[in-house]
Amino acid sequence: MRQITRDTTLCMSLAGRPGNFGTRFHNYLYEAMGLDYLYKAFTTSDLKSAIAGIRALGIRGCAISMPFKEQVIAYVDELNHSADVIQSVNTIVNDNGYLSAYNTDYLAIEALLKRYQVSTDLTFALYGSGGMAKAVACALKQAGFNSGTVVARNKTTGKQLADLYGYNWQSTTEMLEADFLINVTPIGMQGANEQDLSFPEVMVDQAQIVFDVVAMPEFTPLIRRAQSQGKTVIKGSEVFALQAVEQFALYTGQRPDDELFAQAAAYARDA
Amino acid sequence: MRQITRDTTLCMSLAGRPGNFGTRFHNYLYEAMGLDYLYKAFTTSDLKSAIAGIRALGIRGCAISMPFKEQVIAYVDELNHSADVIQSVNTIVNDNGYLSAYNTDYLAIEALLKRYQVSTDLTFALYGSGGMAKAVACALKQAGFNSGTVVARNKTTGKQLADLYGYNWQSTTEMLEADFLINVTPIGMQGANEQDLSFPEVMVDQAQIVFDVVAMPEFTPLIRRAQSQGKTVIKGSEVFALQAVEQFALYTGQRPDDELFAQAAAYARDA
Repeated sequence: MRQITRDTTLCMSLAGRPGNFGTRFHNYLYEAMGLDYLYKAFTTSDLKSAIAGIRALGIRGCAISMPFKEQVIAYVDELNHSADVIQSVNTIVNDNGYLSAYNTDYLAIEALLKRYQVSTDLTFALYGSGGMAKAVACALKQAGFNSGTVVARNKTTGKQLADLYGYNWQSTTEMLEADFLINVTPIGMQGANEQDLSFPEVMVDQAQIVFDVVAMPEFTPLIRRAQSQGKTVIKGSEVFALQAVEQFALYTGQRPDDELFAQAAAYARDA
Repeated sequence: MRQITRDTTLCMSLAGRPGNFGTRFHNYLYEAMGLDYLYKAFTTSDLKSAIAGIRALGIRGCAISMPFKEQVIAYVDELNHSADVIQSVNTIVNDNGYLSAYNTDYLAIEALLKRYQVSTDLTFALYGSGGMAKAVACALKQAGFNSGTVVARNKTTGKQLADLYGYNWQSTTEMLEADFLINVTPIGMQGANEQDLSFPEVMVDQAQIVFDVVAMPEFTPLIRRAQSQGKTVIKGSEVFALQAVEQFALYTGQRPDDELFAQAAAYARDA
């Protein structure tokens, strides 16, 4: 039996519909890395009191999921740059009652744009207009991309996102050409249009770099087609891994190596 | 590795100085009884927010220790009779956001007075004037004991407690005779006057029933002397066991049997 004591540090998550991934993932790593931590998913119908409780009970960290990512801003003490620029929080760190909020999705996207040395001279096409699309658009803007198009059927959210960062908006990919394609829709995701290509074939074939935020499966139709043509690809699994490791490091000060990370993610998925 | 999931129910404790006993005791029983529960001790410097957090996060139960037992009354929704009569809480149960407060020490003392069929015709001497002494005095009053004396050096707390229930107060046991002796001081406790007898020998020898609230060791000098004379004894370990099982049942709806309880208590003590 794993030893839980008064000194065991609790981390948690808050989501409208809690999944099991985070609980399994973090607890697996705590065990493997010998950390006296414990992780548990929660939901709440009173976000303000839940956050007050995290502070008052000294709960070390909390992952924030839908639908709390914006609402929680009002209850923390400080927004890290990553959460501030997109006004969206996915991670809270509690230092003796002082709550700092981060967005590790944003941090991961920012890091991947650097890691793959994506030239800001490229024009991009960003397909999607949800929370993750906002994180990507903002990271592109901050990185210095001046020319790009947000593609979204929903005019309200699509045009709003494009206008926010001074990019173009189109409702479809018709007549669109871009060097750097980024899919932030569920197309290609396990259980949702899994066989579909998120961009038209001709656009993929003309692009230089392809980024799919879909993490499961690792090799979506988009990634497979781009890779078969020798293009640079950035996978959703890389975003997921980076953001999860960053979150883990914010809570514990430690980072699992790649092999251990892969083991924990595989264990967590196998629910 | 013990499986913690989003569905695992969390119980906890709040204390000024959290010990390890509760965490070890409850987790041992959860494991042994196959309950998908988890227990963790906490402290707080903001009791109101901590209780609001318990409510908002759906934490199932919370043990309340010093110095929060009275203060917490303001933050719960309902006081069970056991907490109401002594205005002191040691257990909170959360039913979908509705917080009921109990005092399982009181419940245990009440149950033991019945179990040992202590006649209310007996005169008692109650030694001590702290929180547990109050629980005992109140239980005696509620049971129908009319004649007794609170013995306490501290006149303020001693006389106040005696007056509250219409009993006498004496600063020492001098000239005192009683049929039913109750020790609620630390005398005889492991690490605190362990060899000392809490009442004078002559009083023990004249008494019919002896009750020692000290739980560790099980056989205090007071209990040993009374037992060697064939008197009825009520041990602190019985109070502790009853209150702990009651608390466990309030959280989980289940009761460990005596053997399992003893195993869990032994495991929890062996920190």
